[in-house]
Amino acid sequence: MTTRNRVSRLLGVRYPLIQAGMVWCSPWQLASAVSNAGGLGIIGAASMYPDVLAEHIAKCRNATDRPFGVNLPLLYPDLEAHIERILAAGVPVVFTSAGNPRKYTRMLKENGRTVVHVVSSAAFAKKAEDAGVDAVVAEGFEAGGHNGREETTTLCLVPEVAESVDIPVIAAGGIGTGRAMLAAMVLGAEGVQIGSRFVASDESSAHPAFKQRVVETPEGGTVLTLKELTPVRMIRNPFYHTIEQAYAEGASVDGLRALLGRGRSKRGMFEGDMDTGELEIGQVSAQIRGVLPAGRIVAEIMAEYRGLVNAFAAGPAGRFDFDMDPSE
Amino acid sequence: MTTRNRVSRLLGVRYPLIQAGMVWCSPWQLASAVSNAGGLGIIGAASMYPDVLAEHIAKCRNATDRPFGVNLPLLYPDLEAHIERILAAGVPVVFTSAGNPRKYTRMLKENGRTVVHVVSSAAFAKKAEDAGVDAVVAEGFEAGGHNGREETTTLCLVPEVAESVDIPVIAAGGIGTGRAMLAAMVLGAEGVQIGSRFVASDESSAHPAFKQRVVETPEGGTVLTLKELTPVRMIRNPFYHTIEQAYAEGASVDGLRALLGRGRSKRGMFEGDMDTGELEIGQVSAQIRGVLPAGRIVAEIMAEYRGLVNAFAAGPAGRFDFDMDPSE
Repeated sequence: MTTRNRVSRLLGVRYPLIQAGMVWCSPWQLASAVSNAGGLGIIGAASMYPDVLAEHIAKCRNATDRPFGVNLPLLYPDLEAHIERILAAGVPVVFTSAGNPRKYTRMLKENGRTVVHVVSSAAFAKKAEDAGVDAVVAEGFEAGGHNGREETTTLCLVPEVAESVDIPVIAAGGIGTGRAMLAAMVLGAEGVQIGSRFVASDESSAHPAFKQRVVETPEGGTVLTLKELTPVRMIRNPFYHTIEQAYAEGASVDGLRALLGRGRSKRGMFEGDMDTGELEIGQVSAQIRGVLPAGRIVAEIMAEYRGLVNAFAAGPAGRFDFDMDPSE
Repeated sequence: MTTRNRVSRLLGVRYPLIQAGMVWCSPWQLASAVSNAGGLGIIGAASMYPDVLAEHIAKCRNATDRPFGVNLPLLYPDLEAHIERILAAGVPVVFTSAGNPRKYTRMLKENGRTVVHVVSSAAFAKKAEDAGVDAVVAEGFEAGGHNGREETTTLCLVPEVAESVDIPVIAAGGIGTGRAMLAAMVLGAEGVQIGSRFVASDESSAHPAFKQRVVETPEGGTVLTLKELTPVRMIRNPFYHTIEQAYAEGASVDGLRALLGRGRSKRGMFEGDMDTGELEIGQVSAQIRGVLPAGRIVAEIMAEYRGLVNAFAAGPAGRFDFDMDPSE
């Protein structure tokens, strides 16, 4: 099998389809299921103590003989301990985010790891490339959870990043279907990272109430807020309305920080408190119709992608069928 | 020539590529140039007195024998007078926006006009379809100028709208290239509406200083603001910084309205005051590299689109080349 897609070659996977390593939702069960289905599964380290992470890595390794990764936010307090566990356990792929890739990339690369960094602008993509990462994830405004300050959408971000770096670009934000995957590839990406769709999977560790809430989220049901702290996209639930109220009353940055408190996303996403918890999810939740096994999600996305590509190979038809020839 | 693309058939144009009817930027010179190049040019009525509009329609008709349209914001004070001029002059296509399509669609249709309504959500798309419009423009968060409250991006909005209505969907917001056009079509659109890219055209009536500013806008250089009034995307210029300052000081809705005042966009976009004027443009401005003749913009976009489609017809290559076959 020869392939010219650099992301699938780099990661050693069949499909350039990556499951995001999300806080509270990405345990070894999810990562191994996605890897077994031909994508790249990622364990979300940010919501795990170092020993918990080590356990998830070990179990993931037992559950799949295919590559998998760990997502590592570089601002995390236990970062050194996390990196130690990742190196000790021989995790082949590390996705870093939320911090400066200059600090750890060389060390991870010297230890033979593939390093991918998440960015929200072409300028940061360039910095990540200069730091030596193997690829970047370009994540747009529509993505769930923590988000960039530029508010650039995936449609605008992907071509800008693809033009600014030579390393491969993985698109993220707003992607949960095969047609969105193909659209991202057309824009210049060589792969996609999908989060929200996998929150609503059987193997996700999201609380069942949160999974159900994701399925029920209508269009316009999420919002990017707390921009004075770290911008984060969440569901407009009662907790969000207390944030809205705080803004209306002219809350200070310290006031917002106090309101958010600690453990707010755990309470919502992992413990299932739909009222006072923080529920991080992307705009694409409006398109999610049910909770499915992760392997079936991968298969559905790839079947839709394949169908569109094969249709193209047969020549423009349907909505693509118009006179493309130069008129003058 | 038979074509199954419903937008090009509906509008009677070669390419389903529509130039947005933008305030201060879309005179007869631009509309006729785009129509002559095979797209649909649209005169922007919102910044024209009724008699000025009538003059632009007459000159556009002299400058092209192909279809063209007028964009009509339904909240405009001179609306009745505008509609009268449009009916008298026999303009074949009317794009309506910013208001309830129920009020005028039937009358326009009874007079033989094609009616397209601009929406920012699937719910409003459905309402527009029920009102009898022929097609909808689904315009995402990244678009310049007035924008929806849901903040749904084009990548998420287009498939949601395409699924909710049976009439054809035209994608808008973040589109200025052939690859973005193809991505939008993959998502379910049957055509695209392009604004920002045509602001930076020779025939646009934008002030030369504004055109130059659009070319120089970096990524992250625009922002959606004044959400308490009508959300509007503009360049982060000194006028925007006075808005920012007003927010920081806890400005009321009335205070924001007073700060915006009247004629602010004319001052910036048409008169060229880059400091105290309002400069409406989309995120895609970061990708615009120069001011070109409108016909050449159409030709460049279509050449890129055609190249991508033809490449697909030859089978997956480059970044699209990976093993798509089911693995299990």
